Amino acid sequence: MEDKEYMQRAIMLAKLGAGFVNPNPMVGAVIVKNGKIIGEGYHRKYGDLHAERNALRDCSESPEGATMYVTLEPCCHYGKTPPCTEAIIESGITRVVIGTLDVNPVVAGKGARILMENGIKVEVGLLEKECKKLNRVFNKYMSSKRPYVVMKYAMTADGKIATVTGESKWITGDEARTNVHRLRKNLSGIMVGVSTVIMDDPGLDCRLDEPAKNPVRIICDSHLRTPLTSKVVKTADEIETIIATSSDDKKKVAEFKKKGCRVINIPQAENGIDLNVLMERLGEMGIDSVLLEGGGTLNYSALESKIVDEIHVHMAPKIFGGSSKSPVEGLGIENINDAIRLNPIETVWAGEDLIIENEVIY
Amino acid sequence: MEDKEYMQRAIMLAKLGAGFVNPNPMVGAVIVKNGKIIGEGYHRKYGDLHAERNALRDCSESPEGATMYVTLEPCCHYGKTPPCTEAIIESGITRVVIGTLDVNPVVAGKGARILMENGIKVEVGLLEKECKKLNRVFNKYMSSKRPYVVMKYAMTADGKIATVTGESKWITGDEARTNVHRLRKNLSGIMVGVSTVIMDDPGLDCRLDEPAKNPVRIICDSHLRTPLTSKVVKTADEIETIIATSSDDKKKVAEFKKKGCRVINIPQAENGIDLNVLMERLGEMGIDSVLLEGGGTLNYSALESKIVDEIHVHMAPKIFGGSSKSPVEGLGIENINDAIRLNPIETVWAGEDLIIENEVIY
Repeated sequence: MEDKEYMQRAIMLAKLGAGFVNPNPMVGAVIVKNGKIIGEGYHRKYGDLHAERNALRDCSESPEGATMYVTLEPCCHYGKTPPCTEAIIESGITRVVIGTLDVNPVVAGKGARILMENGIKVEVGLLEKECKKLNRVFNKYMSSKRPYVVMKYAMTADGKIATVTGESKWITGDEARTNVHRLRKNLSGIMVGVSTVIMDDPGLDCRLDEPAKNPVRIICDSHLRTPLTSKVVKTADEIETIIATSSDDKKKVAEFKKKGCRVINIPQAENGIDLNVLMERLGEMGIDSVLLEGGGTLNYSALESKIVDEIHVHMAPKIFGGSSKSPVEGLGIENINDAIRLNPIETVWAGEDLIIENEVIY
Repeated sequence: MEDKEYMQRAIMLAKLGAGFVNPNPMVGAVIVKNGKIIGEGYHRKYGDLHAERNALRDCSESPEGATMYVTLEPCCHYGKTPPCTEAIIESGITRVVIGTLDVNPVVAGKGARILMENGIKVEVGLLEKECKKLNRVFNKYMSSKRPYVVMKYAMTADGKIATVTGESKWITGDEARTNVHRLRKNLSGIMVGVSTVIMDDPGLDCRLDEPAKNPVRIICDSHLRTPLTSKVVKTADEIETIIATSSDDKKKVAEFKKKGCRVINIPQAENGIDLNVLMERLGEMGIDSVLLEGGGTLNYSALESKIVDEIHVHMAPKIFGGSSKSPVEGLGIENINDAIRLNPIETVWAGEDLIIENEVIY
């Protein structure tokens, strides 16, 4: 096997931590000696051992003289665990191949330098694009202290999210919907507007036939219109639920709190609550990523507020016709040159539905 | 090379006739002797020699004992040219590999049988799917006497065909628009509604840096509202232009005719002219294929009338937002189970735009 294949394996290992390591990065490591993998590991869960230490523990023989392939620069600071650089130096490993440097300012190149200063051969940048993509949530959160926001919507091939009478269950098939539940697992929060709660009464939980976790539910609700009888409120004592509001109706706030919801006060903006302030607050609460499953109004406000990092378009091979709802509404742009630009990064078939993943370019 | 590779080459040759052979099928042929291509050809232009005869003419040595790979079953009837089966039998070719049988009832298996009766080894069905796709226009036209209709629209990633103020130039980039001009070349007709003529005043011609031809322009115009000053009318003496109307305003009809337009009378249906009758009439006129570049109203009527065979969605990586126009409007379906179903057949990147080609399932 070549260097690239070992790094590919480290990336696959890293992904196993998706949804469990936040707000830590996903990291995978593979240790190779004499052309044979002698140990491998990944960061499994926030607070647990880092990938490098898991790989060292997993070694079937002494790692002396071996090469370590690791998707992210090893840490050199005391966090929840002691620095990985120390463990690597002690292990006798003589070469470390790093996918990408850490953007965390307390590491940022220092980890690599410490290894080099200790006589270890260090190479940086193998499959860098893939390794960076692995940690786009971590990178944004680390550098901005705000969550990485993924907007997702399901629409028909003619751009509709409902029929003219408002029917929307279901536009896409089982496989695309499983993909959404995987996103719900991998991201820390899920956000909708109060209109969606009123109209669809969604559970916003994660239903997967595999180890999963529910994201924190965030309802944007300027005027506290969320029904106390809605599914989200009724299950707020089981799944963390945040109501973000500009209302100071103390009686209502007390009712939501009694049901187990957390109510946070966010100033009013032009259309609904100030989403930039909300993102700051969520960041402070340790929420590093949010899946936005809003309706057209919230989606437009989110794009206008420039809080969205990615848009996942789930397109079903169906036509509804009519002048029904579309995924992004609000006021809309007037001049064609003011269009919000996207950079398509990947297309994936989910059954007969096509998922197009895009980065938002601001 | 293997059989499959020779057939692949025959398919490539066949495609060179796109836009010039209608309403004949595109056909390519390759003649191989002792593992070497000794002749190849394709049907170049309606009325010209068939692919088989062109390939035989092209032979650099005697085709005796050779194998012919041909995308479509050789004809066995006297049409514009004498039967190809005769030419093949006379040539001494001993094996014929056919992509797909001809659906034309005067051929339909008879061509293959005649070859076999003359001691030629015949194999049918190599790369059959690709060979059939090559002639989906011909197959529909031959079996129904109506044109094959391809609906094409350009929309944003949020399903808009214009901004809220109506700007729509341009949604997609140069490469996607070149793809549209290639469709205009390959299909016999191009159809729009009168609203598009009034709003956009399009030329509906084919602009390509390669041998090209203009499609016949068809305007669906119930009440003869097409402006006499529009580009299509002003160029009607250069490019064939059909105005399909339910109006019997003889004075207006005379004016259009004077400008060089052909005016055909089509009965009124619920929304505009009866598109099924129009398709019959176009079929009778020898138009085997139509590119529908309608607005939302005509697009919905066309789908409701079940005249559309394919939909090409050109999706630009942009978001417009707002409640602006979408590609298929009209009344729309109410019940989600009544959605018009598509079968995605291909996705192609054209620069940063994504083209999704779908078959319509009725």
